[in-house]
Amino acid sequence: MNFTIQNVLIPIPTSDDYTTTDVQVIDGIITAIAPGLEVVGEAINGQNKLLLPGFVNAHTHSSEMWQRGIIPPLPLELWLAQLYDFAPLDAEKVYLSALGTAVETLLTGGTTVVDHLVLIPDQELETIATAVRAYREVGIRAFIAPLIQDQSLNAGIPSGDTQQNHEAFFRSTQETLEVLEAAIKQFHDPEDGISILAAPTGIQLCSDALFTGCIELGEKYNLCLHSHLLETKAQAMLAQEKYGCTGVEHLRNLGYLSDRTSLAHCVHLTDNDIAILAETQSTVVHNPLSNLRLGSGIAPILKFRQAGVNVSFGCDGASSNDSQDLLEAIKIGSILHNTTDLEYEHWITPRQAVEMAALGGARGLNMEQEIGSVTVGKKADLVLYDLSNLSLLPRTDPIGLLVLGRPVNVVDSAWVNGKQVVRDGTVTTVDIQELRTELFQHSQWDSKGKSATVEEIEAHYRYVMGLGIFK
Amino acid sequence: MNFTIQNVLIPIPTSDDYTTTDVQVIDGIITAIAPGLEVVGEAINGQNKLLLPGFVNAHTHSSEMWQRGIIPPLPLELWLAQLYDFAPLDAEKVYLSALGTAVETLLTGGTTVVDHLVLIPDQELETIATAVRAYREVGIRAFIAPLIQDQSLNAGIPSGDTQQNHEAFFRSTQETLEVLEAAIKQFHDPEDGISILAAPTGIQLCSDALFTGCIELGEKYNLCLHSHLLETKAQAMLAQEKYGCTGVEHLRNLGYLSDRTSLAHCVHLTDNDIAILAETQSTVVHNPLSNLRLGSGIAPILKFRQAGVNVSFGCDGASSNDSQDLLEAIKIGSILHNTTDLEYEHWITPRQAVEMAALGGARGLNMEQEIGSVTVGKKADLVLYDLSNLSLLPRTDPIGLLVLGRPVNVVDSAWVNGKQVVRDGTVTTVDIQELRTELFQHSQWDSKGKSATVEEIEAHYRYVMGLGIFK
Repeated sequence: MNFTIQNVLIPIPTSDDYTTTDVQVIDGIITAIAPGLEVVGEAINGQNKLLLPGFVNAHTHSSEMWQRGIIPPLPLELWLAQLYDFAPLDAEKVYLSALGTAVETLLTGGTTVVDHLVLIPDQELETIATAVRAYREVGIRAFIAPLIQDQSLNAGIPSGDTQQNHEAFFRSTQETLEVLEAAIKQFHDPEDGISILAAPTGIQLCSDALFTGCIELGEKYNLCLHSHLLETKAQAMLAQEKYGCTGVEHLRNLGYLSDRTSLAHCVHLTDNDIAILAETQSTVVHNPLSNLRLGSGIAPILKFRQAGVNVSFGCDGASSNDSQDLLEAIKIGSILHNTTDLEYEHWITPRQAVEMAALGGARGLNMEQEIGSVTVGKKADLVLYDLSNLSLLPRTDPIGLLVLGRPVNVVDSAWVNGKQVVRDGTVTTVDIQELRTELFQHSQWDSKGKSATVEEIEAHYRYVMGLGIFK
Repeated sequence: MNFTIQNVLIPIPTSDDYTTTDVQVIDGIITAIAPGLEVVGEAINGQNKLLLPGFVNAHTHSSEMWQRGIIPPLPLELWLAQLYDFAPLDAEKVYLSALGTAVETLLTGGTTVVDHLVLIPDQELETIATAVRAYREVGIRAFIAPLIQDQSLNAGIPSGDTQQNHEAFFRSTQETLEVLEAAIKQFHDPEDGISILAAPTGIQLCSDALFTGCIELGEKYNLCLHSHLLETKAQAMLAQEKYGCTGVEHLRNLGYLSDRTSLAHCVHLTDNDIAILAETQSTVVHNPLSNLRLGSGIAPILKFRQAGVNVSFGCDGASSNDSQDLLEAIKIGSILHNTTDLEYEHWITPRQAVEMAALGGARGLNMEQEIGSVTVGKKADLVLYDLSNLSLLPRTDPIGLLVLGRPVNVVDSAWVNGKQVVRDGTVTTVDIQELRTELFQHSQWDSKGKSATVEEIEAHYRYVMGLGIFK
């Protein structure tokens, strides 16, 4: 676990420049950054390479990998029905897609993943154990957020002026919280790189009691909180129907928002909502590809940043993206917002994007003091990029190329907690060829139309969203 | 030039399904598509592979590759000043960036490139000759559109209520048209895969006489026309200042719009402009990454499609993207528009995106009868994708994975006019290692602030765009 990276390019903070230096890591901690250091442990040749802190893939759902590429262009509420109709209910598949998610994250600059993990009904703890096993094998730092709800899927669509009766969820709020607490006791082990988050799906499918129960478990076990929030116009309408206020106001009133809460999406927020997120020091996880793919909208990221809200990046599940390429999420999540404000002084620079992806991600998980920058005393969650790769040539500004370009095969090495997990561009901890074979054999080429559930709920969705009669 | 691809997956037109079949190519022409064909020429194993028509990278500027990653977030008008201040004026660099552009296009599904080529002043024909040499060596089908203008750069910014005097361009309109005609005579050779387009930069930098001269050369030499059009809000304002009507109306009045005209960007159009493009059967080249990066806006692509306007995809130059990954442009150019229309029946499906990228691109170059689909009698501009690549697993809908995912290293083989130019994932016609070495040696890591010209014009730009005093 000791190594010294020699003659590596690193960005100089508070400037646009770079310096060539050595970085020393002992027992998983960055112990020195200076030119000409004594070599401790393995000597790593950093020449023509760029060293950055590992990024955080701050919101995903690993098992969606099984459905990537196949769900037709649909808005979230219908897409979700299609997703659930064909969701894999099989521990072996959960294992393989967690491996795949971790591998794609590592090979695109991520060293931490937040998996809002879809649970197999009545096998919740087994599902979590399977994901834990996969992440331990790969060696990525993992925050597993068991995806819990206590209301049925149809409850997520506004009623409008209609009367809707939603069937009860198959499990009570109390039982769901008991499952979560069992998972915390069994798997929460931050020192070993596996943490549990308390993470209700979102206001659209959860009671106040579930949110409150999660706050209590968070306090009891010292956990961070996570949730989806106001991803779609329909959810913003639903919040008004359910609470008579915005979803942000309601979560603030429940006490759910704090500097240990990260919230995925945050697309449909008012200016007052943004002020609340700033005041409570909550983190927004921006999932730009998913927001485009599902037509959810463009999150007001520049407004968040001007208000002082911490923003990080996520890929979101691979059925709504349909990838786990963190560099892609960072690129699109940066440049997308240039169209929302003519004042280019507000636009996100490549350096700022890197900071959001690394330190912003760490902050949302209460890890700001431990990871998120190449700083003496912090854990060695590091990524070394090969600047001689064709996609990063000709040589210009390395971080500009990485963020604004389309880097391919550029991660030379990655370390998590000082342990090397990528070497010479290859994940060393799992057998990638075997993973490919398994993914291939557990699937078949197919193209599906709309699912039965979509057909069932589509007319109401169209009515309440003002889309008129379905053609 | 004869080969037979065996047992390859191809999409069945007018359905969502696929079939496994053989495809036979003789003398560069697709001669048969059916299962169990007699092997003519080389037998190509198509198992676990998808065959699609080659895509068209329908708008780029190859030499911008030298500045990718380095220009700070700026709107087009300021970005352009920065671009020109540091543009490479060196034939060797033009050669290398044309090679790089072709290689990245081929490795992301493109078999045709439209290079709106920046010309070195007083070395215009040498610049074009250099790009022709590069494209011939790589073997990509190339449409070279020499970038011509007859007004100085500052003329591209609206005057608003100020008096602006623009210095004359260094060369007269007539001389510029003579250079273009010389290029046509010397290099236009469609049968050999090199075509010249008549392509004034755009209304913002060109006189009516230059447009009219290009129309005449187009008629005389049977060329297609190309131009930038209404990329930014500033250009839409400028059109009103110059012509008292929209840019589309003015080009229609000049006779520039026809089924042989392709127009890059088309972001700021009125509904009447869209009707004019439909009526004249003009093609829109959508460059989504560039439009985001430069904050130009979101082109009304769904409206174009509903009006029956042909739309294709371009990467645009690598300083405004900052890549030449055609699959990235196709993905973002598809999903971006889901945020502009709640009616998801209008959203672009992956199959439609493939058709836009291939047949749509061909149509904009008057090549619809010759390329753009896997059809008996058409030229063999084909791409074979490896569906066992990790980024296309697990197996679901192959075209969905290709368009909505983030495919990496998936192009197994590519043919242009029946000649193989990619084999086993590697471009076979040029030495990629040598190209990397050359690009590396001709450049250095650097990070630049704003250029002198940007500083000079920024105050006026901010004033006329209503951005207020520069901080």
